[in-house]
Amino acid sequence: MTAQLIDGRARAEHLKADVAREVKQLTADGIGCGLATVIVGEDYRAAAYEGRLARIAAELGLPHRRLVLPATTTQTDLLAQVRLLNDDPSVTGILVLRPLPAHISEAEVFRSLSPMKDIEAVHPENAGLLALGTPRYVPSTAASVFHVLDEWLDSVGEDRPAFYHRSLVVVVGRSNNVGKPAVSLAYERGAAVESVDEWASRTGRLGWHTRRADVLIVAAGVPGLIRSEHVRAGAVVLDVGINPMRDSNTGAVRMVGDVDTEDVLPRARAVTPVPGGIGPVTDVWLLRNTVTAARNAAQAQPSSVSAEKEWSRP
Amino acid sequence: MTAQLIDGRARAEHLKADVAREVKQLTADGIGCGLATVIVGEDYRAAAYEGRLARIAAELGLPHRRLVLPATTTQTDLLAQVRLLNDDPSVTGILVLRPLPAHISEAEVFRSLSPMKDIEAVHPENAGLLALGTPRYVPSTAASVFHVLDEWLDSVGEDRPAFYHRSLVVVVGRSNNVGKPAVSLAYERGAAVESVDEWASRTGRLGWHTRRADVLIVAAGVPGLIRSEHVRAGAVVLDVGINPMRDSNTGAVRMVGDVDTEDVLPRARAVTPVPGGIGPVTDVWLLRNTVTAARNAAQAQPSSVSAEKEWSRP
Repeated sequence: MTAQLIDGRARAEHLKADVAREVKQLTADGIGCGLATVIVGEDYRAAAYEGRLARIAAELGLPHRRLVLPATTTQTDLLAQVRLLNDDPSVTGILVLRPLPAHISEAEVFRSLSPMKDIEAVHPENAGLLALGTPRYVPSTAASVFHVLDEWLDSVGEDRPAFYHRSLVVVVGRSNNVGKPAVSLAYERGAAVESVDEWASRTGRLGWHTRRADVLIVAAGVPGLIRSEHVRAGAVVLDVGINPMRDSNTGAVRMVGDVDTEDVLPRARAVTPVPGGIGPVTDVWLLRNTVTAARNAAQAQPSSVSAEKEWSRP
Repeated sequence: MTAQLIDGRARAEHLKADVAREVKQLTADGIGCGLATVIVGEDYRAAAYEGRLARIAAELGLPHRRLVLPATTTQTDLLAQVRLLNDDPSVTGILVLRPLPAHISEAEVFRSLSPMKDIEAVHPENAGLLALGTPRYVPSTAASVFHVLDEWLDSVGEDRPAFYHRSLVVVVGRSNNVGKPAVSLAYERGAAVESVDEWASRTGRLGWHTRRADVLIVAAGVPGLIRSEHVRAGAVVLDVGINPMRDSNTGAVRMVGDVDTEDVLPRARAVTPVPGGIGPVTDVWLLRNTVTAARNAAQAQPSSVSAEKEWSRP
């Protein structure tokens, strides 16, 4: 038996149609919505991500302001920019892209975000609400992993609660933006959860952990880390890795996952590919959070200003 | 080989001596310190806990204000009381005891606490800082579990980082106040971590999870849940359960853990008993957090008022 390749692009299109409906409903309700992205310095992946968000926002008719700051921007200046966005009623969601230059404290910048506009849930209050099981926003990558998994379970006729209650979810990688939120989402579903970091590899015990997984979520940032010997027969494997690799002959950059898909396919029940797996869903999810944030802002302040003016309406 | 019984009372005495020194230093530095406990309605365990805190605070010379409210207190009234404590500069740490009456939202009350005075880290911001790996305060039970474990490792000559990096910590129970913070503290130490909830028992898989644990932390609230068949030979078992059991003959109440200590002793490497294990350390840890909060308040506001007046100085 060869595993099913889960089509993330098709899933993303479905989700996009949902978000488009929600955007229309916002407009009908007279609620302004505005995404602001902040990018500091040059980074291949950040720029690519921001470009994809811009394209989807345009497609959805969702106002998007792009702030691109030089790598020499001081922390003080960046905090001032964030304050302006916090205070601007036409901005309802803010995404500060990673990575920030080394001279800027990511934690300080994230703490300065207005929690209601913090659509990636990086502010401690939002991280806490997620940890406590009552999230305001769910970070988009972890949300997408479980959205893809939930929908896949439906598609093969598995009962979600029954599946999760008897499953062990193993999460490889323990970052604040992906690994830890994924653990929280697995908690919410009532699964047993195992979380491993780089010490599992360094001590030669990675397979001992991962081979028990009914669901294996890999967010380690190590190309091809997971091979078939790490995977339980019949496991569902979700690959969050997006590692840019430059072809030494052509010079072209292509994205490679943390899972050796070809090697794992004969052993797993289902696998998400890279590219075309979790990534496309993540992009749309961020815009879904932006819409949620617009609704939250409107509820908090019924007379909110329309987000139309001073935006380059796509 | 029979396991070592870890003496929590001796550990608590050591810790108390440390906190007493810190209290003296606060006084020498002219920094006020004041603990306020809030208890709503009648609960055997909450009242016992508050009583122990009062006794230790008196012993340490740490001002303690006890607010005891009837079970009929409305949420609005409780929130007003919390606001008064938030605004009172002589109060530097606030503990709202669990459980609250069913008509009051625990989450609402916890969110209303001033994060700087929230010594049990129940406010979302503090839960988030812990989840992100940069805690302001660590909830006292989880902190005590790892304090006991760290000190025990030292006592048997184990190198802490080496031990944690090759260990699997299994946490049974996933409460916001104990299970989840314990997972965060295991993360901090670089251990692999498995978290299971009641579904592990209901699906008959509890032993499949727990038998792999190098360190087994049990916070399920189920008397005697863990027996020797659940324990790996040579594991360290930390029992967080404190379940009041009434003797049917004498009517006396005694505390029983989540671990069947007698049964587990021949198989484990070390076990914390109940009573006399994690509990006594937890009590002192809460007061340690209170001292930390006083320092934090003094740093935030150098000209802070002395906490002496209007307190019943013990």
